[in-house]
Amino acid sequence: MLGRVLEAASRASTTGNMQVYSIVVTTRGEVREALNACHFNQPATKAPVMLTFCADFNRFSRWCELRKATPGYDNFHSFIVGAIDALLASQNAALEAESQGLGICYLGTTTYTADKIIDILKLPKGVVPVTTVVLGYPTEIPELTDRLPLDAIVHREIYHDFSDEDIDRIYAERDSQPLTLKLLEENGKDTLAQVFTDNRYTKRDFVAISNLLLRVLEGQGFMNNEM
Amino acid sequence: MLGRVLEAASRASTTGNMQVYSIVVTTRGEVREALNACHFNQPATKAPVMLTFCADFNRFSRWCELRKATPGYDNFHSFIVGAIDALLASQNAALEAESQGLGICYLGTTTYTADKIIDILKLPKGVVPVTTVVLGYPTEIPELTDRLPLDAIVHREIYHDFSDEDIDRIYAERDSQPLTLKLLEENGKDTLAQVFTDNRYTKRDFVAISNLLLRVLEGQGFMNNEM
Repeated sequence: MLGRVLEAASRASTTGNMQVYSIVVTTRGEVREALNACHFNQPATKAPVMLTFCADFNRFSRWCELRKATPGYDNFHSFIVGAIDALLASQNAALEAESQGLGICYLGTTTYTADKIIDILKLPKGVVPVTTVVLGYPTEIPELTDRLPLDAIVHREIYHDFSDEDIDRIYAERDSQPLTLKLLEENGKDTLAQVFTDNRYTKRDFVAISNLLLRVLEGQGFMNNEM
Repeated sequence: MLGRVLEAASRASTTGNMQVYSIVVTTRGEVREALNACHFNQPATKAPVMLTFCADFNRFSRWCELRKATPGYDNFHSFIVGAIDALLASQNAALEAESQGLGICYLGTTTYTADKIIDILKLPKGVVPVTTVVLGYPTEIPELTDRLPLDAIVHREIYHDFSDEDIDRIYAERDSQPLTLKLLEENGKDTLAQVFTDNRYTKRDFVAISNLLLRVLEGQGFMNNEM
């Protein structure tokens, strides 16, 4: 099953067919425990298979050097190109896994601890972890998560910015659903938005992660942005 | 059909269910012509539907402000979170389109001209285009593009860096296939790697795009990385 998941990942669209990404499959032992800790041992880390998707210009640049070519892929755009490749591959893997009846969960915590993941997985220069997907047999089949109405994310021909009334309409259902009211009580907040800004995704954390990521990009050789 | 493609996009995994991305559907007129030019009028721009996938914290931050919450999403990590959301959604859209018999093509040129795309699509602060997918009925069904052997992208437990022999083995087929030999002749090069480094993806271009992207992130309000 894992072979089919990885094969599906490898068929995703990739910039110029460079395949500038890699997938580290971690299943066991101390390495896996250390990775789980990087993901704060959240419940999904109990899943048997963990796939870390990385932007990777290491292999491609090595090939260039061995073929009398001088790679120029140690800059910010190279990271973005590799991250795009890695993320398209990750979604192919996720969908193939689900189509086989497996459960998946993305771990957004990958960027929170990218520096530690680099150490644990021994990622060389030119390689940066971007996202993580865990796979396993699901113990339950939960209902689909709610989504905003489609016109919250889709714009026709050009971007149409939102009026206050648009925002009220788009978020009306989410603001008032039972899960939201439960969260407000649990978190002692007046609005769901405050649960995000004050507890889940605080400015303090996001600023800290921003600086960590920029340091990681520098350290992994993706910030040489001069000729 | 487009409705189903957009619906599939909206079902992709998204960080904390924030859905911090948007999709601009552009089909016609001057706006579309201007977008096609941003993509250098490459053949795929003849496709009838163009979907521009953007990292988007504009809508989410507007909602926060209208709900007595103070958003802190004007930093680099916010861009990365939005870009991840946008890219997972794009791959769902691409696979749903293909499953309906449509043809798709990703346009990597989105990052090359992100500043112009922002102007054309009137993207407000907090919104940055990340990738573009065009959709249409295919006029031909080409063979699958070749891919490197799976062990070029998959690492077991931790990253295993490549020896020179590994690189030779992994790239053996690609280095010697008829398409490669044709490219070497057309480009007057000794190796396929030189076609990439000297013609397709030069350091000069990548450095220029890196600086453009960093300016775009600054301009769109994603580089306020201090408390």
